[in-house]
Amino acid sequence: MKTILLIGSTGSMGKAALSGLSHHTIITANRSGVGAEYVVDITDENSLRSLFEAVGTIDAVVNTVGYCEYGSFQEMTNEQWRTTIDSKFIGQMNIVRIGSDYVRDGGSFTLISGILSVKPIPMAIADATTSAAIETFAKCVVFEMPRNLRVNVVNPTVLEESWDTYGEMMPGFQAVPGVLVGKAFQRCVEGFISGQVITVDA
Amino acid sequence: MKTILLIGSTGSMGKAALSGLSHHTIITANRSGVGAEYVVDITDENSLRSLFEAVGTIDAVVNTVGYCEYGSFQEMTNEQWRTTIDSKFIGQMNIVRIGSDYVRDGGSFTLISGILSVKPIPMAIADATTSAAIETFAKCVVFEMPRNLRVNVVNPTVLEESWDTYGEMMPGFQAVPGVLVGKAFQRCVEGFISGQVITVDA
Repeated sequence: MKTILLIGSTGSMGKAALSGLSHHTIITANRSGVGAEYVVDITDENSLRSLFEAVGTIDAVVNTVGYCEYGSFQEMTNEQWRTTIDSKFIGQMNIVRIGSDYVRDGGSFTLISGILSVKPIPMAIADATTSAAIETFAKCVVFEMPRNLRVNVVNPTVLEESWDTYGEMMPGFQAVPGVLVGKAFQRCVEGFISGQVITVDA
Repeated sequence: MKTILLIGSTGSMGKAALSGLSHHTIITANRSGVGAEYVVDITDENSLRSLFEAVGTIDAVVNTVGYCEYGSFQEMTNEQWRTTIDSKFIGQMNIVRIGSDYVRDGGSFTLISGILSVKPIPMAIADATTSAAIETFAKCVVFEMPRNLRVNVVNPTVLEESWDTYGEMMPGFQAVPGVLVGKAFQRCVEGFISGQVITVDA
């Protein structure tokens, strides 16, 4: 039984993570505060610090938040790139950097990427590129983590639960059930792996 | 015989690129303007636009610039991350985006990453992470390029010519001669490949 901070608990990916972790004590956070115990904006260092300070010592952090802007490469502005980078890339890194002081020895961070870096589709270049960045971040940062803290990334394809929203832009993709992605999060939190990317695809 | 814009022509990597491309017409640019025909700051969209406007139509762009900040993960500030991202990641993407209007049909962009995303060393997490980002960018953006424009990335290990500077922080690495890296740039410019990462390691 672990105490886990789940950031992005109310989104479809958050619910998927929760499906694999519900036998633990889960502390929930999201951006709006609606349906979650804490409010956090992962693009804001002070907001992250306040969250960890309020939550106190925990065994694991699971993040399912990584906001991306979508558009064709020629039309994507620097501002759209920065918005994506600030959330999916710098935001997730700051969860690890700031959260390190609050996670017990041997505890873990589990971050989120996405299948589009391996299976490109139109309009998703920022999603794909920042996914690759956060995966390599996890692979490299583990050698710097104190107290056997672990860092992993779950790379899911589209969820069955999200197919109505994303299916039209992802022809030929096979959705997976959220419970399968939940198992990937469970494996990261309860296992001993570190610096791994767990791809959940069909 | 192609007309090639070489950005970062006076650095050690620029000289390596030049060694494989000197039988072409080379237009040189760097940040200081010392030893090069044009001045450019790749982190500034207006500077890039001015450069391409002044140079006119070309067959290829080769970039060897990607400024990185170095530090331990816990000590790296958001500002250091942004400085690295603005040059090695957004800067290189903008070379492709803005330069697309100035490169002839079938022409190419060759960008730079680095071996540290595959062979992590202390203090280089920002270098490693942005290298992975630009490699995945190249792999994904090729499907969006107009007029058969090509995009590739050269991923070199440390150069023999730079060993005195970087060797101490890279124990156990084998440096390669700049001329070998020059051949990788030549293969990208003169070949038909696109969306490829050419790793030059020993």
